[in-house]
Amino acid sequence: MSDGRSDGLRYADAGVDLDAAERAKEGLRSLVASTRDCFTLSELGAFGGLYAVPDDVEQPVLVSSADGVGTKLKVAFAANRHDTVGQCLVNHCVNDILVQGARPLFFLDYLATGEMDESVVQDVVRGVAIACRENRCALLGGETAQMPDFYAAGEYDLAGFVVGAVARDRILDGSRIRAGDVLVGLASTGLHTNGYSLARRIVFDVLGLGVDDELPGTGRTVGDELLAVHRSYLGALTAPLAEERVHGLAHVTGGGIPGNLPRILPEGLGAVVERSAWEIPAVFRALQEAGGVERDEMDRVFNMGIGMIVVTEPAEVPAIVGAAGEIGAWEIGRVIEGEGIGYR
Amino acid sequence: MSDGRSDGLRYADAGVDLDAAERAKEGLRSLVASTRDCFTLSELGAFGGLYAVPDDVEQPVLVSSADGVGTKLKVAFAANRHDTVGQCLVNHCVNDILVQGARPLFFLDYLATGEMDESVVQDVVRGVAIACRENRCALLGGETAQMPDFYAAGEYDLAGFVVGAVARDRILDGSRIRAGDVLVGLASTGLHTNGYSLARRIVFDVLGLGVDDELPGTGRTVGDELLAVHRSYLGALTAPLAEERVHGLAHVTGGGIPGNLPRILPEGLGAVVERSAWEIPAVFRALQEAGGVERDEMDRVFNMGIGMIVVTEPAEVPAIVGAAGEIGAWEIGRVIEGEGIGYR
Repeated sequence: MSDGRSDGLRYADAGVDLDAAERAKEGLRSLVASTRDCFTLSELGAFGGLYAVPDDVEQPVLVSSADGVGTKLKVAFAANRHDTVGQCLVNHCVNDILVQGARPLFFLDYLATGEMDESVVQDVVRGVAIACRENRCALLGGETAQMPDFYAAGEYDLAGFVVGAVARDRILDGSRIRAGDVLVGLASTGLHTNGYSLARRIVFDVLGLGVDDELPGTGRTVGDELLAVHRSYLGALTAPLAEERVHGLAHVTGGGIPGNLPRILPEGLGAVVERSAWEIPAVFRALQEAGGVERDEMDRVFNMGIGMIVVTEPAEVPAIVGAAGEIGAWEIGRVIEGEGIGYR
Repeated sequence: MSDGRSDGLRYADAGVDLDAAERAKEGLRSLVASTRDCFTLSELGAFGGLYAVPDDVEQPVLVSSADGVGTKLKVAFAANRHDTVGQCLVNHCVNDILVQGARPLFFLDYLATGEMDESVVQDVVRGVAIACRENRCALLGGETAQMPDFYAAGEYDLAGFVVGAVARDRILDGSRIRAGDVLVGLASTGLHTNGYSLARRIVFDVLGLGVDDELPGTGRTVGDELLAVHRSYLGALTAPLAEERVHGLAHVTGGGIPGNLPRILPEGLGAVVERSAWEIPAVFRALQEAGGVERDEMDRVFNMGIGMIVVTEPAEVPAIVGAAGEIGAWEIGRVIEGEGIGYR
């Protein structure tokens, strides 16, 4: 069928470079290998990744979550800094299954670009691999998609997917939560991965700042403040979970405390949050002031300095705060009879 | 901190509509519920999805894969038809773990849009749910991300992640493959999800066609031909796998037969593929002719009509062809001593 014309179309002419994709994959091999554990059975390049069901979890239930990084990526593009967003992604996913009592087993990423820039791909996946190692989670596979005409030059999207395991009788499902339980808030590192569309509007459009300018009142650049790595709470909560000190966990993501805390409260229970119990970090005060954002809207869009809420008995608060260590933890409220989340 | 100004910024002003996201999620509830099975322990809206490790698989090994739909999405946008790409995604992922002998357990999707169009989101996720049901795979969760300024109006990206299980001694790892084994090719439905950047260039730019025009020689419109659903081979191969008739499976995706068949052949073995053993479907002939694409390039970019290759003993060929039923299957070559893939 081919007529041998030298001007015939090749895949590379359509913007897809299979050799570049292959080189990028080669460069990632050692990064991925560094996350392997004793349950990882497959090598990079297999069609699917293989992972043995761990034999140290009784009646294992798999817990899985998918997420993206959202428009925090736009800040990474502006700062040309691509090694942190992968960490945010993994930590976000790990927190999402941690709240059901699960420890992560393995992770897969999806990275889609317009043109394949090998060094950017390496930086992004390096971030993913670093966080996988920190969370003792195998980077079991992933997809790096070249999609010409889809993403603007220098841009990409990044999503990920975690699978963890929990013993069936250790699943955190809210049923342990009682009126009188205490809310312990664990500090976030900043915005984590939520509210970036509003934050970017305020910082770049209203304030007219660039990534290297100081964000007023924070003493840090816009880039450093807005690219702060979403914190994983796995390390801080592994011991309290093993010791059964935890009645419930809420990961404070999109929707803030009012959007996430009710998701774990049983019927008939609500909560009161003490605004004065912790100091709202400077980044949120700066955004609120510059954007003239209503307080309720701030609460619904941002984590306001609390990345994870631990619900526990009053007597367990010192143990939880102690386990949090340098992260910083405060008693920020109580579970009450009733419904909804009230602030005071 | 809030000054009560009525012109303060709200999240919706930054292009993110949390209420629309909530409504879209509500609309998906029954779709997702329709994919539940006896191992699915969580409801939609939990932080992570819960799935019990099935008790009918001995020494279970989890097999997982991530993938996207690639620029096949561009054809869906042009045709304003969004109910098939989700099926392509699920079927692609299911095939990727099937080749290691695994049956799918659950699936999660990642859907990222610029503006949230509820009906498009519903159509996309309906496709995902339909294919999950067909593959007996729970749609355990997913993320629908609103990313203003990221995707062009009316556009979105879609990725997915599947987790399956296989008994440890039933993993297909190539070790059963012997010289003299036969390659049985199972028919694809068309391009599946690979080579779309080149195909779009040829169809839309070189030929100047629209989605409603006939693709020359195919008797079908460009939209129908290019949006044909990526076939799942789970149904055709479940019985042959259970009966241990299969030595190896190669899913023919990006890279074509020469890029995928070598991935499963053990050291010291190659294969010869008989070009005349099956008829190249009209869509590939039309693309090759219009694009003046070299034959080797066609082989490396497209599946050329073979979506899955089953490696088996000569005596088992009738059973494999019989199990394929209406899909269509042909003996397309042999495994030989040596290395590499040769055509003749």
